[in-house]
Amino acid sequence: MVSSPEDLKRLSMDHLPQLTQELRDEIVRVCSVGGLHLASSLGATDLIVALHYVLDSPRDKLLFDVGHQAYAHKILTGRRHLMHTLKKEGGLSGFTRVSESPHDAITVGHASTSLANALGMAMARDALGQDYKVAAVIGDGALTGGMALAALNTIGDKQPDMLIVLNDNEMSISENVGAINRFMRGLQVQKWFQEGEGAGKKAVSAISKPLAELMSRAKSSTRHFFDPASINPFAAMGLRYVGPVDGHDVIEMAWLMEKLLDLDGPTLLHVVTKKGKGLDFAEADPIKWHGPAKFDPVTHEFAAGKKTYSWSNAFGDAATELASQDPRIFVITPAMREGSGLVEYSRVHPKRYLDVGIAEEVAVTAAAGMGLQGLRPIVAIYSSFLQRAYDQVVHDVAIEHVPVIFAIDRAGVVGADGATHNGVFDLSFLRSIPGMKIGLPKDAFELRGMLKEAVRVGGPVAIRYPRGNTPCVPEGTWPDLAWGTWERLQGGNEVVVLAAGKALEYAQSALKDLPDVGLINARFVKPLDTAMLREVAMSARAIITVEDNSVVGGFGAAVLEELSRLNLSVPVRVLGVPDEFQEHASVERVHALSGMDAQAIRTVLAELGVDVPLEV
Amino acid sequence: MVSSPEDLKRLSMDHLPQLTQELRDEIVRVCSVGGLHLASSLGATDLIVALHYVLDSPRDKLLFDVGHQAYAHKILTGRRHLMHTLKKEGGLSGFTRVSESPHDAITVGHASTSLANALGMAMARDALGQDYKVAAVIGDGALTGGMALAALNTIGDKQPDMLIVLNDNEMSISENVGAINRFMRGLQVQKWFQEGEGAGKKAVSAISKPLAELMSRAKSSTRHFFDPASINPFAAMGLRYVGPVDGHDVIEMAWLMEKLLDLDGPTLLHVVTKKGKGLDFAEADPIKWHGPAKFDPVTHEFAAGKKTYSWSNAFGDAATELASQDPRIFVITPAMREGSGLVEYSRVHPKRYLDVGIAEEVAVTAAAGMGLQGLRPIVAIYSSFLQRAYDQVVHDVAIEHVPVIFAIDRAGVVGADGATHNGVFDLSFLRSIPGMKIGLPKDAFELRGMLKEAVRVGGPVAIRYPRGNTPCVPEGTWPDLAWGTWERLQGGNEVVVLAAGKALEYAQSALKDLPDVGLINARFVKPLDTAMLREVAMSARAIITVEDNSVVGGFGAAVLEELSRLNLSVPVRVLGVPDEFQEHASVERVHALSGMDAQAIRTVLAELGVDVPLEV
Repeated sequence: MVSSPEDLKRLSMDHLPQLTQELRDEIVRVCSVGGLHLASSLGATDLIVALHYVLDSPRDKLLFDVGHQAYAHKILTGRRHLMHTLKKEGGLSGFTRVSESPHDAITVGHASTSLANALGMAMARDALGQDYKVAAVIGDGALTGGMALAALNTIGDKQPDMLIVLNDNEMSISENVGAINRFMRGLQVQKWFQEGEGAGKKAVSAISKPLAELMSRAKSSTRHFFDPASINPFAAMGLRYVGPVDGHDVIEMAWLMEKLLDLDGPTLLHVVTKKGKGLDFAEADPIKWHGPAKFDPVTHEFAAGKKTYSWSNAFGDAATELASQDPRIFVITPAMREGSGLVEYSRVHPKRYLDVGIAEEVAVTAAAGMGLQGLRPIVAIYSSFLQRAYDQVVHDVAIEHVPVIFAIDRAGVVGADGATHNGVFDLSFLRSIPGMKIGLPKDAFELRGMLKEAVRVGGPVAIRYPRGNTPCVPEGTWPDLAWGTWERLQGGNEVVVLAAGKALEYAQSALKDLPDVGLINARFVKPLDTAMLREVAMSARAIITVEDNSVVGGFGAAVLEELSRLNLSVPVRVLGVPDEFQEHASVERVHALSGMDAQAIRTVLAELGVDVPLEV
Repeated sequence: MVSSPEDLKRLSMDHLPQLTQELRDEIVRVCSVGGLHLASSLGATDLIVALHYVLDSPRDKLLFDVGHQAYAHKILTGRRHLMHTLKKEGGLSGFTRVSESPHDAITVGHASTSLANALGMAMARDALGQDYKVAAVIGDGALTGGMALAALNTIGDKQPDMLIVLNDNEMSISENVGAINRFMRGLQVQKWFQEGEGAGKKAVSAISKPLAELMSRAKSSTRHFFDPASINPFAAMGLRYVGPVDGHDVIEMAWLMEKLLDLDGPTLLHVVTKKGKGLDFAEADPIKWHGPAKFDPVTHEFAAGKKTYSWSNAFGDAATELASQDPRIFVITPAMREGSGLVEYSRVHPKRYLDVGIAEEVAVTAAAGMGLQGLRPIVAIYSSFLQRAYDQVVHDVAIEHVPVIFAIDRAGVVGADGATHNGVFDLSFLRSIPGMKIGLPKDAFELRGMLKEAVRVGGPVAIRYPRGNTPCVPEGTWPDLAWGTWERLQGGNEVVVLAAGKALEYAQSALKDLPDVGLINARFVKPLDTAMLREVAMSARAIITVEDNSVVGGFGAAVLEELSRLNLSVPVRVLGVPDEFQEHASVERVHALSGMDAQAIRTVLAELGVDVPLEV
């Protein structure tokens, strides 16, 4: 019945709990098709209802950090009938999108952006003399991000009117980390107590007056002095802190939020929620149910899936073995243990594993520090999240040629997660960094070969691989692979296809009945295999490059630049992801629309005069 | 007499004050040549002496954030005889550099990186079973950076042994901002008091129990409850906080640091210093004396400089006028008011001006929020610092084509500041962002034309201009300039030079006696002027591109890509900054070494068969 915020406001407060239950049922039904954000959306349902009850969206601005928890928001703002299209081509985005609804205040996907956006909106409001309200919902995980903390620092300073709802569900996607998280768990207080009693006390007595005084006071009146609300990072940052409150008591929250929205300055309301709230099995294992595969909405059993071996698993297995052989290996993840295939690694090598939270900048620069001091750190990171640490790669790693390996997962088009998550810029932004080496393995064998070679050659090395499964399970093997050498897969000197990474699959499929067309596995994008490229350019009348990256500044551009440097003139056709943001759809479909799949390659071959049968 | 940390340790503690005085005298003498970081280096001298007195560098690791305050460190670690070469070609870097000395633990230039590096080093030490000490010096300005705050969050969580010296000199380069800064000023405490007494109290009584309780307690025992050390962001993050102590009492600091270095876990020592310490006029105006021009070391008078008009001034003047005409203009700076020419703007339009501290990510995303809500925000930022916010440009601005203008100062080679500060990647990393417009004005007229046009066309627009002076002072004029149109400056169809931005000056100089060579002001790099490029490519037998950016993925690559797309084959020679980090030297010298100055252009012309007289 409720399909707009206006409908919602017509309900009496007493009816809100029933509404949230109906929303939860709907969300479970919607998510049972698989691949959707179930647990977080269930956890945030009550606070979303409470916010929409007291806000006047879209006049008031409601911002969701990451935006994957906003399914209840989508249902409440006129999109209930489209929920079955979530993350499908032409359907709703999995996140909030400005272009999708006037109720979606920001477009998101990456974490920690809501507070800076809210700051900007609040200041725009004040600069233009308007008077709408601004409310941002941010999870405890997203709060580990540097830009969220830095935004708090400015918000606490400038004191714009806004409400920040801290949705504390005790984890991001993996288990949560970080000192602020500890504070929220109450561990902070405990640690101080221990210090007061233990080693710290001894040392402290010899030290500075203020600290000694502090500690002595702690002994006499600990409870008051260490009231969690007084050692409070948010209060310390200049925000009015209110909480913690029960994030599933929708009536209490609505009552409280209404009051808080009327206050001057920024208020942070700390609400405690449970991921998966309302589904006992999801509450019990929220990591498993973060984005579950297809399941039965009644029995909650998963549909039988076929056994596969993902690129992430291939990397995780390789890293685990490599670390067993080489004590210098150390793996760092920015809050993506599960997604990066590192669960096993973190168990086997806990002392050489660091999760820095959603703080990609810290992941890369901590790796730089490790590389400077004798380790061979590996930063396991998704391509689109590495964008967060571009400067750290340049400034902290590359300038001194520090040995840091970037294991870049989800590179290229990722499909259902859409524009925010496509990793189609890494070849472009990494390639211009001096001294950076870039490899694109065609399968798990080459991934292992490249990892081994990366450790050997030193300096910054990027190995990028796509979302999805590898063609093989190369247990225990460590092939030799000299950096910068391409592999000729098919003869033919007149027209030659140079395909890198995932694009090679399309090229192989396009050329399987065309033995006279040359095919090269261009597995190294920096440096290129200049010798082989020169050889090709001397004999070919046309070259086609194919890559799962933007056609701007990527592999094709590298080939064009190298040919220009070599003073070789040969026509080059550059295929790849066009210079537009790609919306959500299956990976194959996006590649087809991009004009870089097998069919597209055959079309270009035909344009170049190759005799190509019509069907692939 | 003291030219190594060993020499230093042979001194008795009583002699340290005298040593710091001698170091200060030396620093003033060194800095009188102009262009060096005087005030911050004077401020940090005492704490540097104290640290070297108790640390065993290079076995122990001493990290400086930004690294511009470390002159005393350079003198104490064997580089006294080279101080006259600071920032000169072949001489010492203005910052710490791993490649310069084993005592320089990290290579820096950008702010906020020391803590993540220190975290990495401490974890590397522990992983390898070593036992050196790690100490990082970070200023209060650098602590406003998100990655520093995020690193604190992980340090507080993981509790590695390390000492963080917070060098609190009450400002970064401009005046400091942010809530943490307020805390350090004691204002935080005051604000809480006010709330307890004023508006807050009223509101609060109606609200949550914990806050109400908190506030009522505040009334009864304010002093204890709000002891600054209890509302302490560092303690809240899980660090042992000690301070504040006098950052010019070298004996006290040495004594304290020695004790603190022996403690387990991370300790933050808060020392309060004065920028310019020891020079009364520098203490009185540390912004002016941050990096002073040439001055007399005795009289402290500045050498007479010629009157110039910098690109920064041209931008600042234009922004000030534009904002007077258009209420939607709002300028954001990440702590670079002076450097970006915004002193006057911030005075005239204080309500449409925001300094977010050294937090480029927040600057860009706050601008996105403003752009979404009806403003036309301008982010004034240096090219190399925009690297920090690459993902925010992609994710928060470009995906929804939000109208944000990036006024990119210090683009291209910057000269004396060297590798960390060269802005030679922006064309490469911005060009691959869909929908981004990129312009390179040749002078202040075009800068104003582009700003006006950027406001008109909307969406993300980058205008990049170099360090240094513009050729003109275009008071009050607002030329019309259609985005994407090049300007033909010289006829000639056989060989044509396409020059963008600063590189145009070299091209003009190279071609002044060669009227038969074509010359085009390629002032728009995205989109290119495809019509003019096609016309050129149809008639020319060779094209030369020249740019003040990396030759990888930059303007030249854009031309190559476009010609490939147009199926036009014409030899292109790409001149620009080569694919290596450029060390400090004068801008002109780096350009000459890069093979992109006037002489280099003439050499290439000669290679292409143009009849070129030997001398320019």
